Amino acid sequence: MAKEPVRVAAVGLGRWAKVLAEAVKRSKRLRIVSCYSRSEGNRETFSKQYRCRAANSYEELLKDQEVEGVIITTPNDVHKGPILAAAGQGKHVYVDKPIAHTMSDALVIDRVCRSAGVILAVGHSARRLSGSRKMREILDQGGLGKLVMAECNFSNDRSLELTPDKWRWYKDKSPGGPLIQLGVHHADTLNYLFGPIEKVTARTKRLYTPAEVDDVTMTILEMESGQLCYIGSNWASQGTYYTYVYGMNANLYYTVDFNFWSSSEVIDDHSGLEIQHRGSSEHIPIPLTRGDMFREELEELAECLRQKRQPEVGGPEAIAALAVVHAAKRSAETGQTVTLKEVLES
Amino acid sequence: MAKEPVRVAAVGLGRWAKVLAEAVKRSKRLRIVSCYSRSEGNRETFSKQYRCRAANSYEELLKDQEVEGVIITTPNDVHKGPILAAAGQGKHVYVDKPIAHTMSDALVIDRVCRSAGVILAVGHSARRLSGSRKMREILDQGGLGKLVMAECNFSNDRSLELTPDKWRWYKDKSPGGPLIQLGVHHADTLNYLFGPIEKVTARTKRLYTPAEVDDVTMTILEMESGQLCYIGSNWASQGTYYTYVYGMNANLYYTVDFNFWSSSEVIDDHSGLEIQHRGSSEHIPIPLTRGDMFREELEELAECLRQKRQPEVGGPEAIAALAVVHAAKRSAETGQTVTLKEVLES
Repeated sequence: MAKEPVRVAAVGLGRWAKVLAEAVKRSKRLRIVSCYSRSEGNRETFSKQYRCRAANSYEELLKDQEVEGVIITTPNDVHKGPILAAAGQGKHVYVDKPIAHTMSDALVIDRVCRSAGVILAVGHSARRLSGSRKMREILDQGGLGKLVMAECNFSNDRSLELTPDKWRWYKDKSPGGPLIQLGVHHADTLNYLFGPIEKVTARTKRLYTPAEVDDVTMTILEMESGQLCYIGSNWASQGTYYTYVYGMNANLYYTVDFNFWSSSEVIDDHSGLEIQHRGSSEHIPIPLTRGDMFREELEELAECLRQKRQPEVGGPEAIAALAVVHAAKRSAETGQTVTLKEVLES
Repeated sequence: MAKEPVRVAAVGLGRWAKVLAEAVKRSKRLRIVSCYSRSEGNRETFSKQYRCRAANSYEELLKDQEVEGVIITTPNDVHKGPILAAAGQGKHVYVDKPIAHTMSDALVIDRVCRSAGVILAVGHSARRLSGSRKMREILDQGGLGKLVMAECNFSNDRSLELTPDKWRWYKDKSPGGPLIQLGVHHADTLNYLFGPIEKVTARTKRLYTPAEVDDVTMTILEMESGQLCYIGSNWASQGTYYTYVYGMNANLYYTVDFNFWSSSEVIDDHSGLEIQHRGSSEHIPIPLTRGDMFREELEELAECLRQKRQPEVGGPEAIAALAVVHAAKRSAETGQTVTLKEVLES
């Protein structure tokens, strides 16, 4: 029974659904049995490409006894509806990050999945990058000595091509712009490496995007353990991803070639992790094993589902990451530092 | 006459005086003729090493008709006194950065030198790094397209060895800790590349230093032209110096090996500048010619003195950089964004 692949359905059949479907194809532990999108054309194309049924309605998909879980890649502001409906039918849920666009949606999603007894896994894949795992291992072993600070950037130029028919164009659907789409990965990974985060101070600008949202953001995090962390995230320049960790005994420099982000099975071949010991000029490369972040997070969902356990990134972890985005947004608006507590309690 | 070396005297004979004296030795345009420090031992050692007179008092040094200018490397809070005395005797001034520890001292120094008609040059050498010059050239030629943001770091572990007999230990003498010692270089270089700076938002922490000052700082700058810039500066980890500039068409990544900072004649051999064009994975190295930042800024003083012109970094430029430090300090204390205008007018 444990070796029987978990049967999932893809919901929302845009570009990201295919990235995840490719990850499922690379796995023996899941199988896509159905799919649904409002667009009949997308349903047909997807069902042919991934050899699965196409449901005529979301209700039909959720009544399908064979479907054990749903993989939701609808727009951020259309996460709550499909997730609540799935939970209502006892279907387990994987949803792409962020968990939702608003804190209230995020809290409802977490609460409903919990009381329905379904697993909720959220696609904060960046902590599964081979370099993130290796950094955590080095930090756990005390390899940097006491931690001083960290700096991260996740940027790309996607806002330049936005048009008003795209949900990412709008402030209410995609609050924070690049921060909720890209920077939120670092918010989760920094929680994983250094967390929890206590306070957020941010500045944002709208410089070049034709859309409503801001396209340049800088955010300073104060961790409960005392360190400062920085997240830079813009939506107008060359794809960039790095994490630098500064310790009293050594620094780590981790860079990922964003051009390979969607191809998670090869991204670790296009990533570099280096350590520089205090007092030395040498940057020593640290070998990274090849992982497959999207396949691994979907396989974890399958495992959780069979073993009835919670995933590494479920509701609470995803809410903590989203709260950073909303605290940053509030900080940028008011010019003041915002505690995560304020955002979580409001 | 123009080829006659300018005759200077070294005032304050600590570690940095020797770094600058070595730079003078590499030049044919200046000559050290005298020196002074309160410590007789330091005077003797320095005068032997650099074959110059040792004045018995600062007054004696300033009355020395042969001395045309002074090179001041006293502690930050002991800049005003020696500079005002020098200006009073018509001696030109080179002072190591920052111009002073407080805004009021900085403003007085600038005003007095100006009315005395003496040249005031301030040692913001980082903008003279070969990579800084090359970045400016690329920006001027529009090589990155429209500018999106910049990120910088200048850190080292010097606060860990501080003891109460050192002026850098104290908040009132060294306000801002690493930011006034290290980060202030980036404040000047960002003014040079992107400036002027309009607003400052900062967070600081005191984590590991035994001293009074903070040892971890993160500062977000808002430029008048709209871009955001970040300066990370800590005083507890491996020596680090980088400047990343993000443009719509390409990014620049400039890193300097801090271990060679004091050896400015070879630092450009231990620095790397790379450009990454939008949509490409390739980081293309940009060749850097070898400069000599300390020699060049001292030679500029000599040239200004002979040609009666103002240096590239004089009072106004140094005041602008120091204002960033004080705005950051105020922002960290209040949790609010601070305009440079507020700091300059208070």
